[in-house]
Amino acid sequence: IVATPVSISMAEKGNYRHFMAKEIHEQPEVLGHTFGHYLDLAQESLRFGAAEGIDFANATRMTIAACGTAYYAGLVARYWFERVAGLPIDIDVASEFRYREAPLTPGQPALFVSQSGETADTLASLRYCRAGGQKIASIVNVASSTIARESDVVLPTLAGPEIGVASTKAFTCQLAVLAALAVHAAHARGRLSEDEVREHVGILAEAPGYVADALRLEAGIERVARDLSHASNALYLGRGTNLPLALEGALKLKEISYIHAEGYAAGELKHGPIALIDEDMPVIVIAPHDAVFEKVASNIQEVAARGGRIILITDERGAEEVGTQSAETIVMPTVPPMIAPIAYAVPLQLLSYHAAVFAGTDVDQPRNLAKSVTVE
Amino acid sequence: IVATPVSISMAEKGNYRHFMAKEIHEQPEVLGHTFGHYLDLAQESLRFGAAEGIDFANATRMTIAACGTAYYAGLVARYWFERVAGLPIDIDVASEFRYREAPLTPGQPALFVSQSGETADTLASLRYCRAGGQKIASIVNVASSTIARESDVVLPTLAGPEIGVASTKAFTCQLAVLAALAVHAAHARGRLSEDEVREHVGILAEAPGYVADALRLEAGIERVARDLSHASNALYLGRGTNLPLALEGALKLKEISYIHAEGYAAGELKHGPIALIDEDMPVIVIAPHDAVFEKVASNIQEVAARGGRIILITDERGAEEVGTQSAETIVMPTVPPMIAPIAYAVPLQLLSYHAAVFAGTDVDQPRNLAKSVTVE
Repeated sequence: IVATPVSISMAEKGNYRHFMAKEIHEQPEVLGHTFGHYLDLAQESLRFGAAEGIDFANATRMTIAACGTAYYAGLVARYWFERVAGLPIDIDVASEFRYREAPLTPGQPALFVSQSGETADTLASLRYCRAGGQKIASIVNVASSTIARESDVVLPTLAGPEIGVASTKAFTCQLAVLAALAVHAAHARGRLSEDEVREHVGILAEAPGYVADALRLEAGIERVARDLSHASNALYLGRGTNLPLALEGALKLKEISYIHAEGYAAGELKHGPIALIDEDMPVIVIAPHDAVFEKVASNIQEVAARGGRIILITDERGAEEVGTQSAETIVMPTVPPMIAPIAYAVPLQLLSYHAAVFAGTDVDQPRNLAKSVTVE
Repeated sequence: IVATPVSISMAEKGNYRHFMAKEIHEQPEVLGHTFGHYLDLAQESLRFGAAEGIDFANATRMTIAACGTAYYAGLVARYWFERVAGLPIDIDVASEFRYREAPLTPGQPALFVSQSGETADTLASLRYCRAGGQKIASIVNVASSTIARESDVVLPTLAGPEIGVASTKAFTCQLAVLAALAVHAAHARGRLSEDEVREHVGILAEAPGYVADALRLEAGIERVARDLSHASNALYLGRGTNLPLALEGALKLKEISYIHAEGYAAGELKHGPIALIDEDMPVIVIAPHDAVFEKVASNIQEVAARGGRIILITDERGAEEVGTQSAETIVMPTVPPMIAPIAYAVPLQLLSYHAAVFAGTDVDQPRNLAKSVTVE
C-alpha cells in the first residue's frame, strides 16, 4: 500500500455530475501542488534535486516518447525545450518509436510521460533507450508504477487519482512539470541567468490562477458546446504550441462525444484539409495573440472565405483583430506565452465535456476505451 | 524557357477521363525514369555524383522539412535513413519547422521536398537552415524552381508535369529518390557493403514492376471505392512506413472526395480514436506482412470486435492470417519491404480516385485547393 498526498475525497465525485467535470475543476488546486513541488516560491527558484541525474548542461539532444494525451504534452514541451533551453528534442509516439530502430546516442537523456506509469508501448520505448545506454527520466502520476521503478529520475505529477478515462488534470500537470523542467534545463545550459530563472518561476506560479480564470468561462463554453454536439465532424487548428493543443482538443472530443474531430497544423490547411471546409464542418481555432498569430489569422480568413463555421479561442487582442470572422469567440484572459498551453487546455476540455453531456454519452467511461493501456 | 525531359503528351489527358487517372497510370514509366537517373543498372550501382556535396559519412543527423504529401514522403524516408543508413532524422511540417526556432548544428545536412519547388513554407524552412549554416539538398520536380536554385544539391524527380491537384506520381517519385538516397547514405556511412548496395539497387529497380502489378488491381479497388464513396468519415491505420502511407491515403481521400478521412498510428488507436469505431466508420488498414504485422493484426481484431468495417490492404500472407476479419481485402503482390511504400501508395491512390469519381466531385480541381501553395 502506497500513501498518496491526495485526500480520499478526490476519488469521489463530490457535487459534480461526472468525474471528468470534477477533475477539470480540480486543476487550479492540483497544478498548485505540482508547481509547489518543483518551485520554491519563497526563494523564487527551482527544486529539481531529483533531476540532478540528468546532465542537461552537456546534453546534445533529448528523446521524448509517450502515447495519446501524454504524447501531446511532450509535443508542447518540444517547443519549450528547444526555444528556452536550446535543447533539440526527438519526439515520437511510443508505439512507433519502439519499432523504428532509431539510432541512439548513449548517455543522452530520454524522457517518458505516462499518467498511469504502466502504458505498455511507453514502457517498451523506455527499455529500448535503456538498452541504448541512455539516461532515463519519467513523468508519471503513479509513483509506484513500473515506468517510475525503471527510471533513473522520476518526476511525479501531483494530480491525484484521475478516474475519468479522458485525461484532463493529468495532462495539465504533465505540462506543468515539463515547463518547469525546461526552465531547469535552460538554467543548466546557461541559457537563462539566475534573474531570468526567477522571472520564469514567477510566471509559472501564475498558471493555476489563469486556469481558474479560464474555468470561469464555463457558462459561455457550454453554450458553444450545445451547437458543437450536433456536428458529426470538426477540425481543430493551431500553430506552434497550439498545434499539440489542437491535437489534444480533437482527441478529447473524439474520446467522449464520438464526434470525428481531427487536429491539424494550421499551416497545412491549404495542403489538403481545406477541401473539407463547408458550413457543416465546425473549425475550432486555438489562437492567442502570440508570435504566430498573424499567420493563424490568415488561415482563419481562408476558412471563413469558404463558408466554414469558426469557433475561435483567443484573447482580447486576438478577438479584436479577427473576432468578426468567427461564429463564436471564446475570449480567454491574456496569458504569458510560456504558460498559455496550460490555460488554453481548459476551454478545450470544457468544450468536449459539455458537447458529450449534450450528446448523452457516458462521459467517464466512453465506449471502447480503457483508462490505462497496459497491453500493446 | 526550360526544356523538360518529358514529352508534350504528358500534359494531355490521352485516353483518361482525368489527369489524376493518367498520372496514376504513368507511374511505372516515370518511376523508371527516376530510378534510371539514380541507379546504374548495368553496374548495379548508384549514381549520386550530384549528392557529393553532402558529407553523409560524417553527418550526425539530417533535418527534413516539407508540406502535405511531400512531408509524408519525408516521413517514410525517416524510417529508411534511420534503419538502413543509421542516420537520425529530424522531420517536421515546414509551416511548423520555420517558426519553431529549432536549434541547428552547422554543417549538417538539411533536405527539402517539394513537387513545385515553390512551396512557400518549405522555402522559408530552407532559408532558416541556410542561415544556420547547414548544407542544403532538395528533391523537386521542377528543376528551375526557387527551391532548386537555392540548394547546394538538387535531386530531381523525373515525374514529368503533374496537373492533377492531388499529388500521385510526384509522391512515388519522391519516394524513389529518397530510397535511393538512403542507400547512398548507408554506403557512405559504411553501413552497406558494395555487395549489399548491389542487392539494394536490384530491389529498387523492381519497384516500377510492382507498381504495374498494383495497377492491375484497379477493377477490384474500384468496386471497394463504390461503398467507400458513401461514407462521410474514414480512418486510415498503419505502423512503421505504413503510418505515413495512412496519412497520405487519408489526405488523398480528403482532397478529392471531401470525405473526412484521418490517418492515425495503429498503436495509438486504443488511446482515443477507437471510441469513434462503429459500423458507419470504414477503417482502411495498410498492412503488408512485415515486421510489425502481428501488432497491426491485433489492432485489426480490436476494430473488428467493435463492429468496425475494415478495408484491408495487405499481401497474400497477411490476407491468410487476418483476411476473414475484414469486410474487403485488397491483396497486393508480395513486395520487398524497402520498396513496399512505393507499391502500396497505388491502391490508396486508386481508392481515392474512384471514390471521388463515384461521389461526382471535380477530381482534378477539387474545391478550395491550389496545385502549388506559393503563399504562406
